[in-house]
Parts: sequence; C-alpha cells; structure tokens
Amino acid sequence: MLLERIEAPGIAHISYLIGDGGTAVVVDPRRDVEVYVERATAAGSRITDIVETHRNEDYVIGSVELAERTGAAIWHADAQLPYRYGAPAQPGATWAVGRFTLEALATPGHTPGGLSYLLREADGAPWIVFTGDTLFAGDVGRTDLVEAARSREMAALLHESLFGTLLPLGDEVIVAPGHGAGSVCGAAIASRPWTTIGLERRLDPLLGLTDRDAFVEGAAGVRDRPPYFRRIEVLNVEGAPLLGALPAPPPLGPHEFAAAAGHAVVVDTRWETAFAAGHVPGALSLWLEGLPLYAGWLLPYDRPLLLVVDGDDPSEAVRRLVRLGYDHVEGFLAGGMSAWHVAGLESTAVTTLTAAEHVRRAARGEGGVVLDVRTVAEVADAPVEGTLHIPLGDLPTRLEEVPSDRRIVPLCPGGLRSMTAASVLRSGGVDDVAVILGGLSAWREVEGERSPAAAGGEEVGP
Amino acid sequence: MLLERIEAPGIAHISYLIGDGGTAVVVDPRRDVEVYVERATAAGSRITDIVETHRNEDYVIGSVELAERTGAAIWHADAQLPYRYGAPAQPGATWAVGRFTLEALATPGHTPGGLSYLLREADGAPWIVFTGDTLFAGDVGRTDLVEAARSREMAALLHESLFGTLLPLGDEVIVAPGHGAGSVCGAAIASRPWTTIGLERRLDPLLGLTDRDAFVEGAAGVRDRPPYFRRIEVLNVEGAPLLGALPAPPPLGPHEFAAAAGHAVVVDTRWETAFAAGHVPGALSLWLEGLPLYAGWLLPYDRPLLLVVDGDDPSEAVRRLVRLGYDHVEGFLAGGMSAWHVAGLESTAVTTLTAAEHVRRAARGEGGVVLDVRTVAEVADAPVEGTLHIPLGDLPTRLEEVPSDRRIVPLCPGGLRSMTAASVLRSGGVDDVAVILGGLSAWREVEGERSPAAAGGEEVGP
Amino acid sequence: MLLERIEAPGIAHISYLIGDGGTAVVVDPRRDVEVYVERATAAGSRITDIVETHRNEDYVIGSVELAERTGAAIWHADAQLPYRYGAPAQPGATWAVGRFTLEALATPGHTPGGLSYLLREADGAPWIVFTGDTLFAGDVGRTDLVEAARSREMAALLHESLFGTLLPLGDEVIVAPGHGAGSVCGAAIASRPWTTIGLERRLDPLLGLTDRDAFVEGAAGVRDRPPYFRRIEVLNVEGAPLLGALPAPPPLGPHEFAAAAGHAVVVDTRWETAFAAGHVPGALSLWLEGLPLYAGWLLPYDRPLLLVVDGDDPSEAVRRLVRLGYDHVEGFLAGGMSAWHVAGLESTAVTTLTAAEHVRRAARGEGGVVLDVRTVAEVADAPVEGTLHIPLGDLPTRLEEVPSDRRIVPLCPGGLRSMTAASVLRSGGVDDVAVILGGLSAWREVEGERSPAAAGGEEVGP
Amino acid sequence: MLLERIEAPGIAHISYLIGDGGTAVVVDPRRDVEVYVERATAAGSRITDIVETHRNEDYVIGSVELAERTGAAIWHADAQLPYRYGAPAQPGATWAVGRFTLEALATPGHTPGGLSYLLREADGAPWIVFTGDTLFAGDVGRTDLVEAARSREMAALLHESLFGTLLPLGDEVIVAPGHGAGSVCGAAIASRPWTTIGLERRLDPLLGLTDRDAFVEGAAGVRDRPPYFRRIEVLNVEGAPLLGALPAPPPLGPHEFAAAAGHAVVVDTRWETAFAAGHVPGALSLWLEGLPLYAGWLLPYDRPLLLVVDGDDPSEAVRRLVRLGYDHVEGFLAGGMSAWHVAGLESTAVTTLTAAEHVRRAARGEGGVVLDVRTVAEVADAPVEGTLHIPLGDLPTRLEEVPSDRRIVPLCPGGLRSMTAASVLRSGGVDDVAVILGGLSAWREVEGERSPAAAGGEEVGP
Repeated sequence: MLLERIEAPGIAHISYLIGDGGTAVVVDPRRDVEVYVERATAAGSRITDIVETHRNEDYVIGSVELAERTGAAIWHADAQLPYRYGAPAQPGATWAVGRFTLEALATPGHTPGGLSYLLREADGAPWIVFTGDTLFAGDVGRTDLVEAARSREMAALLHESLFGTLLPLGDEVIVAPGHGAGSVCGAAIASRPWTTIGLERRLDPLLGLTDRDAFVEGAAGVRDRPPYFRRIEVLNVEGAPLLGALPAPPPLGPHEFAAAAGHAVVVDTRWETAFAAGHVPGALSLWLEGLPLYAGWLLPYDRPLLLVVDGDDPSEAVRRLVRLGYDHVEGFLAGGMSAWHVAGLESTAVTTLTAAEHVRRAARGEGGVVLDVRTVAEVADAPVEGTLHIPLGDLPTRLEEVPSDRRIVPLCPGGLRSMTAASVLRSGGVDDVAVILGGLSAWREVEGERSPAAAGGEEVGP
Repeated sequence: MLLERIEAPGIAHISYLIGDGGTAVVVDPRRDVEVYVERATAAGSRITDIVETHRNEDYVIGSVELAERTGAAIWHADAQLPYRYGAPAQPGATWAVGRFTLEALATPGHTPGGLSYLLREADGAPWIVFTGDTLFAGDVGRTDLVEAARSREMAALLHESLFGTLLPLGDEVIVAPGHGAGSVCGAAIASRPWTTIGLERRLDPLLGLTDRDAFVEGAAGVRDRPPYFRRIEVLNVEGAPLLGALPAPPPLGPHEFAAAAGHAVVVDTRWETAFAAGHVPGALSLWLEGLPLYAGWLLPYDRPLLLVVDGDDPSEAVRRLVRLGYDHVEGFLAGGMSAWHVAGLESTAVTTLTAAEHVRRAARGEGGVVLDVRTVAEVADAPVEGTLHIPLGDLPTRLEEVPSDRRIVPLCPGGLRSMTAASVLRSGGVDDVAVILGGLSAWREVEGERSPAAAGGEEVGP
Repeated sequence: MLLERIEAPGIAHISYLIGDGGTAVVVDPRRDVEVYVERATAAGSRITDIVETHRNEDYVIGSVELAERTGAAIWHADAQLPYRYGAPAQPGATWAVGRFTLEALATPGHTPGGLSYLLREADGAPWIVFTGDTLFAGDVGRTDLVEAARSREMAALLHESLFGTLLPLGDEVIVAPGHGAGSVCGAAIASRPWTTIGLERRLDPLLGLTDRDAFVEGAAGVRDRPPYFRRIEVLNVEGAPLLGALPAPPPLGPHEFAAAAGHAVVVDTRWETAFAAGHVPGALSLWLEGLPLYAGWLLPYDRPLLLVVDGDDPSEAVRRLVRLGYDHVEGFLAGGMSAWHVAGLESTAVTTLTAAEHVRRAARGEGGVVLDVRTVAEVADAPVEGTLHIPLGDLPTRLEEVPSDRRIVPLCPGGLRSMTAASVLRSGGVDDVAVILGGLSAWREVEGERSPAAAGGEEVGP
Repeated sequence: MLLERIEAPGIAHISYLIGDGGTAVVVDPRRDVEVYVERATAAGSRITDIVETHRNEDYVIGSVELAERTGAAIWHADAQLPYRYGAPAQPGATWAVGRFTLEALATPGHTPGGLSYLLREADGAPWIVFTGDTLFAGDVGRTDLVEAARSREMAALLHESLFGTLLPLGDEVIVAPGHGAGSVCGAAIASRPWTTIGLERRLDPLLGLTDRDAFVEGAAGVRDRPPYFRRIEVLNVEGAPLLGALPAPPPLGPHEFAAAAGHAVVVDTRWETAFAAGHVPGALSLWLEGLPLYAGWLLPYDRPLLLVVDGDDPSEAVRRLVRLGYDHVEGFLAGGMSAWHVAGLESTAVTTLTAAEHVRRAARGEGGVVLDVRTVAEVADAPVEGTLHIPLGDLPTRLEEVPSDRRIVPLCPGGLRSMTAASVLRSGGVDDVAVILGGLSAWREVEGERSPAAAGGEEVGP
C-alpha cells in the first residue's frame, strides 16, 4: 500500500500519492511532478487519476503536467469554473484504489465548490480524509480568498462542511491537509504532519467552538492576499504551460550577466549576510526558503529573471520559482558573487548591525526609523512600539510612506525578511538602510526577554 | 517538525525518527543507520536518544551502531535482561523533543518488559503512540515468542496493556507500530501505514472482543518460531558488532567463485524463473524480497555466504543480510550466471510447469506429490487437499518426510517459496522436483476459481 | 578545464563535453542530454556549440534536444545533406573554448563530408583530436555505410584523411574517437578509452600499412548493415522529435499487459536464463546490454513496444530504446513475470542445455541443427564446422532457411544472442529450439580447448 | 576496460582506478575510498592491489582504508622508509590487470625512492604512465620537499628519471600525473587532464631544456613548504586511523556551539561576503575550495574543529578535512549564522571595499597598508608595489610584522585568501582590517589594465 506525503517547502504545500493493487491517485499535485511518477512506478502502480480539492490560488497545480506524463484523468473541484482541461468531480463520486475506495465529499467554505476526499478501508470504514484547505492541523481554511466581502458567507459554509461533514466522520479518522505550518493559506497551522479528527476537535481552537456564530465570527475576516494569487488562479483554470523537464538556465559570466541585468530582474537567493556584504546593484534579496513565500509578492511575471545563488547549482531556486509560475529564468551568475567581484564589477552593500549594536544606537537616539515588515497578524500577536508598520509584501506599493531622510531599520522575526525589505528599499531610492542581524528575536534576546514567538515555543520564522 | 517512518522491507520492520527544535529521537533503529543520521542532520537535528520498545528477536537492532555514530544514549525496554550496553528506560520516563514530550508506557505482553512511547503535543495532548510489537494495524503482538508455554500468561498482560493503557489514550491518537504487513511478528497485520486507536478499536478483530477471556484465548497460541530468533536475541542483548560502512563484498570471477563455494553457502537472489533455468550447483534460491523472510530459517551463521545476483550490485542483498546478523559475505559472482556459463562451468536447473500444465498432468495422474510449504496459518485459512504439508522454514529439518521416489511439486501462494523449497530439496538429495510458476494462485486461476487469498483482496504473497 | 568522455553503453557511442572559461562545446551528443547540461552547469560553463563529426547512422543524435535545452548552435558535418536544422561547419572553422581552440578538419572516408575536430592548446599545439568514426582505437571507420558499392572510393578518401591529415598531427596528439569496443561502426575496435596518434600508428593494423593500395584493400569491403540505419539517417537529417524528459511508461497489471500485447511487440530484457524458464508468449528476448545492439535489427518502428524487465524499473531500457528512436513504449509488466504467473496467465519456455549436455547429446547424434547466429566476421575468425549460419540480425528475413522438422540449437559466443534467436525462431513457428548456456565459449571450455576469441584475451561478447 | 581518473578537488590530487578482466588496481588512493570500491564493483572488478608512487606529503593516502575494505595488497614506493603496513614495490615488478600489465619504473627526484607505473597494452606496447609527482602537465615535480638542502641533488635524479626513463617511452605514451593545476606540489601545473610524453616534451618548459645543468638549475630551488606536511608524512608511513564511514558531526544549536567554541577552533567555510557581514567571533574564514589548500597551514591537529557552513550539510567540508588528517570535527552550527543571530549571540564583521572604493581611498592617501598574502612565486610573477608581503600560510607566525596602528588591507588574486587573512589578523589582535572584494584582479580591472594572471588567460585563483 502506497501512502506518500509529498511536500513543497516554503509554500508548505502538501500533496499525496495513494496507491494499491497497481492503481494510484494523486491529490493536488505540485508542478514538478517527477516525484509522483517515480514513486508510483517504483511501487508498480499506474497513476490513473488526479483529484483536486479546490482551484488553488497559491501555487501552480501540476495536474496538466502529470496528466501529460501519465495519461491520468484530472478531476476538478470548484466545478463552476471555466476549466480548459479535466472534468468536474461530483460529490459522492468514488474511485477504486486497489482494495480501498476514495470518495469525494462536498466541503465548501475555503472555495465555493471545494471538495475533500475520503479514503475508506476495504470494509468501508473511513480511514483518511484529504481535506485540502478546508481543515488544517490547528487551523481551518481561509474564507476571504474568493472574495473578501463574502468572507462571512463562506465561513458559514465552512461551518457546515466541518461540523456537518468532516467531524462526524469520527475522531479516529486521520486528517491529511493541503498545507502545513508556514502556508499563507492558514494563519496558525501547526506542525503536526499527521493529525486526526479527534485531535483537531481537541486542539484546533475554532473547532472547539460550540456556537455557530462564534465560529463564523472567528473564521471570517480578511488577511493578506498576495497579488500573484490572481495570476495563479487563472493558470489553474486555463492550465499552465507544459514544462517537460525542469528548466536549466545557463551559467552566465559576470559581463554577460551584467548585460542581461539591463532588462531582467536579479534575484539573489543567498543568505542575508552574504547579500549584505556585496550584491549585484539592484538585486532583490530572497533567500531560498523565502523564495516561495515572497516571490509572488515581489517579482513580476512579465520580465525574465536572473539568479545569484551560492555556488553553481540554481536548480532548487528554479524549482521553487516554477511552482509559482515563474518559468523564465534567463541565467545565473557563474561562479557567484566572487566571480562578479573578480571581474572588477561594482557591487553594493547593506549595513548590518548586531542586535546589541542596535540597542546601543537606539539608546543614543540613533536607532533610526524601525520599519516593521511583519504581517498584520504577527504584529497583532507581538506588537513592537514606536515602529512604522508596512508588511513586506506591500512594501513596493507603499514606498512613499517611508521617510527618505532618516536611516531606515527594517524589522522582522529573524532578519531575513528585513534584508529583503532592505533590497526593496534600496531599489526604491531609500539609501540609508541598516538591518539587524537576527531581527526581533535577537533584539529581544539582547534585551533580556524572550520574544513572544519564541516564548510560545514555535520556531522563529524568518 | 521531523516525523519519519523508515521501513526495512521484507521483515516489514518500521522505525521512527522524531525531531523538533534541534533534538531528535529514534525508535527501534535498524542496523544500517545512515538514513537516520542523514535525515536528522539535514533537518538540523542531533540524535540524542535511542529508545527501544522491546528486546527484538527478528532483526538486529541498530542502537549500538547509531550510538557510535552520534553519541546518543540508548534506552532499553525489557530491563530485566543483562544488556551489555545502554540503560533501562523506566515506565513514566520522559524525553523532551523540542516542543513535544515522549513518555515511556509499560505495555508488556509481547515481551515481559515491553514499552510503548507516547508522543504528546506541546499542550500535553496524547498525539502519537509508538507501540512496537504490542499493537499493529489489524493485529496485536504475538505472545509466544518469549516462551511458548507462557503464551496465555503473556496474553493476559497484553490485555491489560491494550485495554488498560493504550485504548484509553483516546480514539484520536495515532498508532505507529513496529511492523507492517508481512512481518512474522503478527499473523494478520494490515497494510495501513498509519492508523489510530479508534480505527484499531474498530478494525482489529481482537480489540473488538469485550470479554477478557475471549481476548486471551485469541491472543494466546503458538506460531512459527524461526530458529534464528535465538541468535538475534543474544545479539540484541550483547550488542552486535560495529559495521562502520555497509560491507562491500568483492566480485569474484567464475572460477574463484566456484572455489569459494567449496566452503561457503551460495545464495541466489534472482527471481525464480532465472534460478530455474540455471544456477550454481547447490545454491539456495532466495529471491531478494524473500531474503529477509527466510534467510534466518535457511542460512547458517557459522559459514560465509556467496551471492549470485542479477547484474553486478549485491548491496541490497548485503544490506538485508546484515539486518539479520549475517555479516560475512565473502563475494558475489561477477557477471552473474552468464559469466558462469561462459566459463563452461556446470549449472543445474529446476523443472518448471505452468499451472495449466500441472492441472493437465494431475488429471492424468502424473501430478506427483504436492508439497505444501505454506505456513500453518496459511494452510488453515485455505487448505488444499491431498498434499503433504511442511512449512518452508521447517523443510531442512524434516526432509526425511519427503518421499524420494516420486516427483515432488512444492506449492506456495505465488511460486517463489516453492523455488526456495525446490533448491532445499535438491540440496537434500531429492532429485525429481518441479515448480508450478505462479503457485497456488495460478493454479486456482486456471481452475476457474479465485484463490481464497486473492478473493479477500489481499496481495498475493510469495 | 572540463573534458568529459560520456558513453552510451551497448552502441558504444562516445560523446565529449569540452569546457573552459565559461564556455562549453559538445561533440556528437546522445539523445538523452541531461548529462551534458548538468555537468556543464556544475562547472559553470554554458554550452554554446554542438559539433557533429558526421551524419550518424547508428544512433539518434541529440543535437536538436540539446539545442532546445541550451540555446546552443548546431554545426553539421556532411554539409551536402538537406538538414532541417543547424548549419554546416566548414573545414578550417574554429571555435574558442576558453583558452583553447577547436578546429574542424575535413576527414572524409566514413562519410563523404565527415569532419574531425582538433582541440589546440593555448599556444596552438595540437592536443586532442575528436575523430568521430574516422579513426578508432585499433581500427578505422567503415567505408561501406554510405553506399556499399562506393566502399573502395571511400576507402581512398579515408586514406588521405588518415595519412594526409590525422597522422601528421603528431604522435603525441590524443585521439578521442566516436565509438569504443563493441560498436557496429568498427570491426575490431580496441578497449583503450584514450589513445594517441602514435599508439594507433603502432597498434592499429591498417595504419601500419605503408602501401596505399593495401590500405584501400583492407579498409574497403562490405559488412553487416542493420536495416534501421536508414531510419536513423533520416531522423538525423530531419531532426528527431523532442523528448523533454525521458518517457516514463506506466506499469501495467498482467491482464492489462496481456491485452496490450495484442497490438504491441513484447520485449523481454531479462537475462537469458530468466527468459528461458518462462516468458510472455511471443516475447522477444533482448537482454539489456543487447538492446542497443539488436533492437534496430529486430524491432519495428511502427508498433508500440511493451517491456518485461527484472523488477519495476524500466527506465534503463527506455533510455536505450530512445537513443535508437524507439519513443513509444506503451508500458511495462508491473511485478514482472512473477505477477504474470500469479495471475494464472500462460507462459512459454525455451529448453536450455549446459554445454556438457550438448556435447553428450551431439555425441549421440542428437545435437540437432546448430544454427550459428554470429556475424560474418566472427564466423570468419573462428569457424565452427557443421553449422547453418544466419547472422542474428538477418534471422527474421531468412527464417525459411531454417529446417522446421529438426531441433534447432542457436549458437553464439556467450549464449545471450542464442536466446534472442530462440525467441525469434519460436515466434516464427519453429517449435523445437534449445539454447546452450554459455554458448560457444562454454562449449569450447568443455571440449578442453580455449575458444579463439577467449584465447585472444578479448572479453567474450554476448 | 576500466580507466577512471578520480580527483580530490582543492589539493588537486588525482588517483586512478585501472581494471580489466575482473581485476583492478588503484594508484595513490585518497582517504575517502568508497568511490573506488563502488566503481570497481559496478564494473565487476575486484581491487587486488594498491600502488603508491611515493610517500605523499600533501594528503593522507587511503591505502590502509582501501585495503581494509577490499583485502587488496599495498605496494609502497620509497621503500627505505619504515612503513608499518604494506610491502615495497621493486622497480621492474609487474602486475597483471586483465590483458594489460602494470610495471613499476624507478623515477626518483621528487622523493628518493619514487616510482612511476607503466601500463602496457596487451602486446607490450607502452600505453599510459602514471607518473605521480615526477611529471605533471606543464611542470615537473618539486625537488625540495624531502630536504630543502638536497634540492639540487634531487633535481639531478629527476633529470635522469625524466630524460633517461620517461621520455624514452615514446611521444605517444599517455601521461597520467598525480596532481592537476592548483596543487602545491608543482608551481605551474597546466589544466590538461590528459597529456602525453610528446606534448610534455613540447609544452613543459623544463623538458625543453637540452642542457642537463640548465634543467637542474630550473628544477632545483626551494618553495613554500606547509608545516602540516611533516604530520602527513608520518601518517603515511605509520598508516592513518581507519575511518569506516565518513564522520558525521552533529548539528549543534547556537548555544551549544558557542559553548564548544571555548575549546575548539571554529572554521567558517562560507564565501567571503557571507563571512564579512557576520561570523562567530574568532572564526577562521576558509571557503570550501580553499579548505584543502590552507587548512594544513592554519589549523592545528590537536584541537577539535567546529564548522559553520552554508545550510545544513557539512559533509563536503568534513570530507576535505579528513583527506588532510583532520578527523575530529565536533559539530556544525545548525541553521547556520542565521540561527546564531536569531539566538541573539554576538557576531563580528569584516569591512569590505569594492576595488573602486579602494582606489578612491588610496588616491586620498587612506588606502592603509596593503598586505600582499600571495605566494612568493605569485609575487615574483606579478609584483605590486608598495605592499607588505607575507604569504598567507606564514601569516600566523609572522603577525608581529604587521603594523597594529594602521588599517590593514590584505591582497590576493581574487579576494578569498584576503578574507582568510583578515580572519587571522582579527584573531591575532589586528582590529582595523578591510578586504577588497575581487582582490587584485578587481583592482587591476578597475585601474583599466588586465591583471597579469588574467592576461595570460589562466583562471584567476582565489
């Protein structure tokens, strides 16, 4: 029996490969699909069906790519949409997977036509439910993505899907959601890779609410909505271009790279300290793990990209970009920044401070303007006084709010987003920028108090 | 959060790597331990503790090897045994794994001092229980391995462990057992890779018994007990020899191989058809998947082994042998049987029949003596009339029961064990042996009825 | 400096990746091109040019595939052909590869417009010459492939290319040919992976001939010409279809496979003994190493293929088929022949004999008709009396020469081709076929004399 | 036929695996030996002999490790030394490698008892000569390593080895040396991976000298001699400790790491820019490629090491350290410097300048003291006026020569060694240090002239 949980890090997307008796089904495949084909083939199973839990908005779904490679049928949720490929899955439809049966359950709320898929044991007992973005470990799906104004309406649908459909499956049923901790599709997803209905009933705050109105109140509400979601929504309805193999952008010498930088956007995926000491002028700092999280906010779809990476293997960055629909990477800097410097080309730097230095400067009144680039939710959880707050994703469009005559000190939990912000600020004409290494977490450590996030035991985000 | 399920195929052994916040714990490691080190390191976690659910008898535990590589502490169950390494884990002891807590629970029954390990969520909620050989998907642990005569006594302990300790954890708790389907440690383990207390309460036949005596009756009883268990029990108490890297036996030319075969046991891991048409005289047929299942029954510990494999990579066979304590593989046949034949060396063959041929011959009274080599349990489930029954593992010691003046036709579910039996018979001086390709399953297909096993939807075993 | 020798086993095709200073060139790429892209990228070099030594006839060249992945320019030899892609390379043309220079040299003889490529050191010294099929280790190129009747004319051109162009480069120049031992493009290619002009002048028999006419006499002459060469010649002029990623044929259950076998050709790539004891009726036996050698002779281009392999990974077989232009593999048998047998499906067998058995039978006058399936050259080198000779490649079209009322015993050096021949005979209606395991080599060992091939110290071919 | 060239990057060490007919021999194995075992096994060859060209001084030879894994015999050159393992190879001794023969040739000069090994073709023709450190591409071996004072005497021996033994083998013979470009064992090794006697006669400046005295004059002379050579010389005579598998140092959390840094040496293998902006106080900057080159100069053997790497995989750094005999790596910083900063721990930074900034500052008289850390040979080739010259390897012992009251600007070809120097200076109490990104190369580019090295077309070193 084949039951594989396949993650796409960064976007924290989870897809599943289920197989038995020579047949396999994939739930919500990612776009780089070779992993499904390889594992199913190794297990002697043929992928015959691809089921989608909803029209995804945060990653390019791999259904078309996988169908091209395998001949599998594609089954859509959100059947009201004008898909140009695949066929609608009806609630109640079933698929035989060897001895087991997969059944579509209507679970609207995150999207109007969202489905969950219930895998039943040979004797019919509910075993595992693939809940997509309806139910996560520790959280429920967002209700504001289809249309912010309809959030309460969707929250009411979600209540029925959870309390009327999923919870009654039984405490013992395993829950396999579409995202893990870190996804923008849930505010408070926990890091339990596997959970159960009973565990969620107990541990998921909203599922503990017995009052329907209280649930709707809690599940409704508008959060950050990256602009690239619209683009991906279109791709996932129309079908994304076929890739075949993963693109392999060529290495470019420093002078070639410099020439191409005239028309392309330079993305530097190195860690923040490497970026700080020297980078291609105008480059955007987006560390590898942050690429999936912020590329969609900060990168245009209509210009080619150029990559600066550590060493000479850009494939992981390319893989993550392709998952978001950025297919055109024109090349990468061969030999990295060392080669750039050796060629005598000019680079720019960003001032860095340790947290202790920042505290000393601030005590002298030289702390500059602290620009908090965390999300609205993060700031609400752990506010920092006396800062200017612009979430990182919004920074490009709200640059005019940043004072141009003061030193700007971006702030985020760990310092990585701050460096991204610094690179956005520099490209936007703000010259005096300094980044606190280790971010808010370091700052609080230095001040002798634990940061709120750290105190709660959660891993400190970037 | 790191939660990896790591299988050793064949013996269907499952170990677990749990990590969070830079710390990792391994439950019941296998002997080839690089997988734990690599995955923990990649996740930035240091393996600090190794916990054992019981003194294993069916595989060499990798605790010593892993401790040598990592410096981790080893915690034993079955503390009454005279271990030469590690320290006893006390019921109630806890280990912090980042935000989570692992707790030892006394769950005797399979062994007198068996432990389960409960992983609790940050808020203390029971989340996953690692049950070792106490509770499997669809089955409970054997009670006859410590001492056949004490089976009922152990079954009573098991009842208390299950109904008094594990089931009360709650239906929603995930169960992570020490073996999957195919293990000799359970008769009827299901293929659910992940299950829950509630699912087992519902799907595991013995857990559905409300009557204590009925449970004890069902859980007691003596089954096949491979002779090599005693050897491994000793190794797991004394600590197996350190391997360092996996042994890499040298390729041997045909003449070198033939010379070494004078003092070593030749094991041929190719599929049954390849073995049938030509093999090194005296070789034992043990297909790769069957190696972990039958090596312990059929291979001595005091003679070196020689391997014949498909192609030129014996590493997978070596890996599986090492897991059972067979560390001394003297070499493998370079170029395989083709090279042997090209060198003009003599090979022997085994007659094969398709099932249809066998049926035709049997109808003419030329079917020979059908020697059923299935286990006692398999035969009880789906008896075949008119056969001689000797389980494969017992064949070497019961050869005198096999008539020497008739054609012997070994029978098993799929034909692979039959070829192993044929090789044992031939080495034992029984010359007229024929194997039905596809075994009982093929036979029943040809006769127009589904085999009982196939009818039940289970995968047909070897 | 990047200098990689990349082989495609079986066809013994050798391609080269040369890189320096950020630039790389590939000589005669194979069709599965990811290896070039990966290695060049890892070395920080961009593949800018693809050079062909001639219009190849024995494998599908990967120029189009590689150009699609890299944007590199394609440079053709044999400029007289109506290529639909790329541009002609002119003799004397040069390409800068970092500090080095690559220069096209006119070396006709194998083809009318064949080129070699000379890599010069930074100071201009001739360093390595990529000779394609003009000069091999121990042999020179065939002159009969373009048109059998023009062999002497081409041999005269070849004389000038060798004695007038290549040898004068100097004894110290390294020779990097387009094929290694085992290729059909040379009769007697030696296994030296690297050689030099001086070594070849000394060790290559034809280069030792001082007399031009003697050389022409020796280099002219017609040998086996597989029918598929015409197909590949067309593909290499028109440009083969783009693959993207390597095709991944699906696993098929036994009944699905049986149904597909109604319209497709079944190819069984297992070793000869495995095939002998049981195979899908009608299957062609083509062991994995023999696939590249005989697929072109024995497989049609206009029907889909089905694969039976050892285990569940058909990718190596697919890779080798794609190199010859067989792109349509419809599936492979999941679980291999064991699954087929378990399903109760009928299989067929081929009788095998050890060499000793054959000798004994022959002594009794029961040896049957020995059908020598070796090449004309092999037979000339080491004739065996009293046999019928039909080279394996010709067998399908010369079946009527095989007596249908006698036992047929195919003969080849090692037994593998014999099993292929047996499968061809069986499909052609010849029922009584037996194969000598180990072939002629085993036979001669048993008879107490070394086979001529073995005596010469060469590896015994299949 | 197996002929593999296996490199250890950084130290530019080249070893060779030669195999034929089931037998394989390794010339000068490196210490991480799995590559030899895997490749030989895959080719069906058993490694029976290990031959050493001389008692190496620049890397720990893997003979003992490989013999332990394979049972192969070890054959030493420099038989006068008191080896504790293996046996002496006598000049004239031969080893059969399938059809080929390997023969030991006395070629003293680099060491008193150095050997080359000549591989002869089946007919006896000299084919490939493995020259160890006697003859490289473009250079000859150093004569000063055994004892600086005996350099002329050794040069005379070397003359005889080259002109009396190696060159007479014939221009056509392939030369396979023990080091490639970048090794400290040759001053001017070219990047030709394969070369020939004839090419070297033409391209190697010293081989062009017809006058014996002129050769001795050119080949004699004393160059940098890293202090760790003495240590490795001892290890290579006594036999290095067995490793088994490559050590896998554990990930350490920031606080654990900080505690361990109290007694261990911290080595930071990230690129120079990453180091510059923030590193563990007291860490030594040694980029991954530079590790093999400078570890021996700068790291003690009697203290454990701690690693800071990019990301969470220290294995490549560990591999390179082990090759030099640094076996005790106590751990690596989990999560890298980001985790360090997030934990609020203090880091230090190094000021960086682009070359243009340096030029501007220098023009204002603020350029500081330029400390040229290149080798004596590099400085002689391309002197820079007005600098203080201390080769990097000597810096720890010559710190007192560095002015402590001025800004120090280390200078090297590309900037990487400068950062290493900066870290040494900082640890030595020199606080005001600044590094020019891109080093001398960038500086010269900015000043409008090509650097001498770049002008020559050679790759710019670190």
